[in-house]
Amino acid sequence: MKLLAFMMQTGGHIAGWRHPRAAERALCDIDYFRELGQTAERGLFDGVFLADYVGYHPVKSAEIFAGTESPKLDPLAVLSTIAAATDTIGLIGTASTTYSQPYDLARRFASLDHLSKGRAGWNIVTSTMENEAHNYGREAHMGHSERYARAEEFVAVARRLWDSWEEGAYLADKDSGRCTDPGRISAVNHAGEHFRVAGPLTVPRSPQGHPVLVQAGASATGQRFAAGHAEVIFTSHPTIATAKAFRSAMHAQLAEFGRSPESLKVMPAITPILGASRAEAKDLQRELDALIPTQVALSKLEALLGNIDLSGHDPDGPLPTLPEAALAGQNSTRDRVLELATRETLSLRELARRVAGGRTSHSVVGTASDIAETLIAWEREGAADGFVISPPVLPAGLSDFVDEVVPILQERGHFRQAYEGSSLRANLGLAVPENSFTHDPHSRMAPEIF
Amino acid sequence: MKLLAFMMQTGGHIAGWRHPRAAERALCDIDYFRELGQTAERGLFDGVFLADYVGYHPVKSAEIFAGTESPKLDPLAVLSTIAAATDTIGLIGTASTTYSQPYDLARRFASLDHLSKGRAGWNIVTSTMENEAHNYGREAHMGHSERYARAEEFVAVARRLWDSWEEGAYLADKDSGRCTDPGRISAVNHAGEHFRVAGPLTVPRSPQGHPVLVQAGASATGQRFAAGHAEVIFTSHPTIATAKAFRSAMHAQLAEFGRSPESLKVMPAITPILGASRAEAKDLQRELDALIPTQVALSKLEALLGNIDLSGHDPDGPLPTLPEAALAGQNSTRDRVLELATRETLSLRELARRVAGGRTSHSVVGTASDIAETLIAWEREGAADGFVISPPVLPAGLSDFVDEVVPILQERGHFRQAYEGSSLRANLGLAVPENSFTHDPHSRMAPEIF
Repeated sequence: MKLLAFMMQTGGHIAGWRHPRAAERALCDIDYFRELGQTAERGLFDGVFLADYVGYHPVKSAEIFAGTESPKLDPLAVLSTIAAATDTIGLIGTASTTYSQPYDLARRFASLDHLSKGRAGWNIVTSTMENEAHNYGREAHMGHSERYARAEEFVAVARRLWDSWEEGAYLADKDSGRCTDPGRISAVNHAGEHFRVAGPLTVPRSPQGHPVLVQAGASATGQRFAAGHAEVIFTSHPTIATAKAFRSAMHAQLAEFGRSPESLKVMPAITPILGASRAEAKDLQRELDALIPTQVALSKLEALLGNIDLSGHDPDGPLPTLPEAALAGQNSTRDRVLELATRETLSLRELARRVAGGRTSHSVVGTASDIAETLIAWEREGAADGFVISPPVLPAGLSDFVDEVVPILQERGHFRQAYEGSSLRANLGLAVPENSFTHDPHSRMAPEIF
Repeated sequence: MKLLAFMMQTGGHIAGWRHPRAAERALCDIDYFRELGQTAERGLFDGVFLADYVGYHPVKSAEIFAGTESPKLDPLAVLSTIAAATDTIGLIGTASTTYSQPYDLARRFASLDHLSKGRAGWNIVTSTMENEAHNYGREAHMGHSERYARAEEFVAVARRLWDSWEEGAYLADKDSGRCTDPGRISAVNHAGEHFRVAGPLTVPRSPQGHPVLVQAGASATGQRFAAGHAEVIFTSHPTIATAKAFRSAMHAQLAEFGRSPESLKVMPAITPILGASRAEAKDLQRELDALIPTQVALSKLEALLGNIDLSGHDPDGPLPTLPEAALAGQNSTRDRVLELATRETLSLRELARRVAGGRTSHSVVGTASDIAETLIAWEREGAADGFVISPPVLPAGLSDFVDEVVPILQERGHFRQAYEGSSLRANLGLAVPENSFTHDPHSRMAPEIF
């Protein structure tokens, strides 16, 4: 079983940051990130994972903003500091193909891979917020298919840049005075619809060949992109059944690209709500949900039900009957919410808090043993190659998981007793990709700099 | 006296990397950079300084490339790792206004400033290489005045982004559930010729307000830009007289922007060639110069003389008489080279090696005491507020300077015995800039995200 630690704000539960055990005002603090990296490494996690947006989601009022938005440092800066404070933990950061340049991003990830001695991972996103577009000079958010077309071209260019120094190109041979072997350094000379890039990169090929490529797109286009490129998929499923179906579908799509199932790790996000007893775990869930401001929860509920307006309704009354338009079409999230409201006869406020809490991550509530058994069951059923663990409260929830759940997974023979290797690829069981120029020497191009 | 350590490849001398004491194949290695940062901190330097180019200079042959070009990791990734391994040393990195986006770069430097607890500096460059243009989708290198116009607008936007969270905006108040105070977070809504940026930044204002702004432009436009924005100038002068004239000229230009001389530190680059005796220092200089491949040295000499062609001439013969065109116009670098050739009756090869060695940095050859006295004399004469020390060989030359020159500077009362503070600004004696939104609350703008 593979495990990644999701460093979501100071907790994966939407109000986790308000919990007494959450770190205080920590989102700009190196000590907070260093501790998370070291705790994940102590627990033999494959890596830490940092989400990112280059802007903010729209929010309706000061009260809502207060509950859901927070500072976000540049992920690669954070991961570079963790690299210096750890030895083995993988370092996966999010970056956008829509608002970056391939030369810059390829260089930054190759640099992190060198500095960490082979631990970098790139979570590829295409970005969806209007505010992000407006921070980067665009009048409006780019359409879905254009974003993915750009992402395809972006990744193709980045791969060539990562290959532009072949094995043995960086000599630094003091005797001969040859710093490099120019015969092993190639231009890229890419001229496509979205990018023109000459190359070579200023960075020799990095220990992993290139960073582990991670993706989370759930749409058909997103899945196809993942089948072509991703080595890890971050996904979210409420049940074993849906996760299993998703993983099978991904394996089928991999085959179309000539890839084996082993080349892609499907990792659902799980929020473990852990207690010494099941009752204590339930209490913790209630405690966390009660910390969600009503407006934040209602706004989230409105979004999950298809952007309906609940503002005129009594929060302590029941969920009103939805307008017909909101019930049209397939929407499994909406249907799960409606089913929950009916089954537990929750008030609007209670329902809103329940669905808002876990963000998109699936919550597992119980003892360490319950949580370990759930993860083992998902893996055994073929629903997952591992999990993105998003503790509700940080850093406490991560150290609880490391101290209480990891030993059970180890004892049951489902998790490593020691790291397999020193690179993220070695621990995830992913091969170092072949260099495309070495594979096809005819594609080598003399750089314009000679 | 202020001191910065220039981390130029594995040595500031162009062939320093070939010296037996230079680090081996170290330019992708975290341990190399960590050691440099820790050594500079042990020597109470104000900061380390990392140059950068997002591409390569054109080179004429494999042999030349071998001597002058080498791997360059992303500076901010390197500085973030040093941040995690040190406590007080300042972290100055180069980044280009021509090939970056203000939102991204402002965010990255603010992140480094937070993670280092107030130690970030930005060396602002506008980039001049064709290859850089071709790596970022441009057909050709942007003209000088357009680059500086873009740089002016870039810095103006970055400053507003750095101010977009005012003091007290990041609350993370668990009791009230208020993560932020939206009344203290402002949009930027910049719409200029080169950029459109909405804001706010995703990062609260950083400990230093913004990174220390560093600049090295020598042209009239570059000097004017520096007078308007820079807090440190990295400069290069062969004599006290030219350095003093430059510093006076900068002070005069500062006045036009209503700035005091104290708000700008003029720091010439110095390469200390250090020996236990003067004879040993001279030997080291000869040893280093002899490591420069003849073609590399001749190419550098050709450039310094105004891009003339020396390829038909015997390297062991004298410098030929230059064509009239090459002697036209004012060119103080050319005249110094001609004067040196005449004075010491050097062969073409010897002359070439002598001028190529120090790159643009002024070499001081002698004992620790000689070097300390030279620095003290430059400072006393008003030629410098401090120095960018570019040791010929790294890391050895930096630790030699720290162990041998720094104690003399301290003994003579010209250098600190302990850090004045924990931020780069505190140690350089620079004030934290006022927040422009706090200064003029009428300029606050509600972000589009509400």
